[in-house]
Amino acid sequence: MVKKDSSSPSPAGIIVREVGTIRNGVKKPFLEAGDDGITMRENVDAVRRRIRRTQDDISEIVINEEMTDILHGIDEYSHIIVLYWAHKVPESSRMLTQVRPMGRDEFPLMGIFSTCSPARPNPILMTVVRLHGKNKNTLSVSGLDAVDESPVIDIKPFVKNFYDKENIRIPEWMQRLCDEME
Amino acid sequence: MVKKDSSSPSPAGIIVREVGTIRNGVKKPFLEAGDDGITMRENVDAVRRRIRRTQDDISEIVINEEMTDILHGIDEYSHIIVLYWAHKVPESSRMLTQVRPMGRDEFPLMGIFSTCSPARPNPILMTVVRLHGKNKNTLSVSGLDAVDESPVIDIKPFVKNFYDKENIRIPEWMQRLCDEME
Repeated sequence: MVKKDSSSPSPAGIIVREVGTIRNGVKKPFLEAGDDGITMRENVDAVRRRIRRTQDDISEIVINEEMTDILHGIDEYSHIIVLYWAHKVPESSRMLTQVRPMGRDEFPLMGIFSTCSPARPNPILMTVVRLHGKNKNTLSVSGLDAVDESPVIDIKPFVKNFYDKENIRIPEWMQRLCDEME
Repeated sequence: MVKKDSSSPSPAGIIVREVGTIRNGVKKPFLEAGDDGITMRENVDAVRRRIRRTQDDISEIVINEEMTDILHGIDEYSHIIVLYWAHKVPESSRMLTQVRPMGRDEFPLMGIFSTCSPARPNPILMTVVRLHGKNKNTLSVSGLDAVDESPVIDIKPFVKNFYDKENIRIPEWMQRLCDEME
């Protein structure tokens, strides 16, 4: 049994505009979000291989043509941060408050804000990617773990200073997940 | 003259839910977004002092009470990432495509996705903060450069592995801004 949030969504939500679309060969996410939590579509080894492959696979980010100007100067960065909408997450999964990390039974239920679950109140996912090039309104990147046709919400420059923190502590279960993916 | 995007907003936008609110003593952002771009409210030295002070000042993040469960386990992290909505950015600023970095005349116009401008199509800002503690549905953090009452959209764990990139390149103007804030 997975905990849910019983509140109704705010009547006056914030409206976010789709600024572009992701194009790649990934048709399904490796984590599936449903009414009762998240589940892994494949076994741990397959997921690990898939995550590693993502590091090299190229995705295209196609920004709406009429706002091409918004990319001016972006090719001077080696890395950018992509914020995109996990459009495969059903509305019901946005009401969950706790899930098992990676949908794995051996982990206890954790609050969703302690996890990288795609099922979250606002399924905005965020990845640092390597920028290979820009051609008009299209960026080529690698390391983007998004599904084909995900709506892009924002792109930000990756500036190391902002992420260069000291004395970082993470829970043991998250360290274990990181170690598994190494 | 600052470039604008002539398209009308998508009729069917994505609706984002406010999951909490930021509480602190910051009443005005140091960058003001208007129809024609962004402007600094204070001189460079004052902004630098203010950014440094933010590193120590405590903000509270109050998550909607009925979803308190979503924070379970978060206090095992030393740092978290806060995604919040820059609610002081007027609707008209969301149509800009280019601005001068930090609103400073000595910089050329850059595409907004190359900058950290709060004026952007979706003014979702993102900061890595130090987590000092959790009390029921309230988190105490430092390093959050948000204005009082900003709506919180998401909280994610800060896991160093995801940001530990090599061979990072940033433009000269961004390096200059970073150096100034050191």
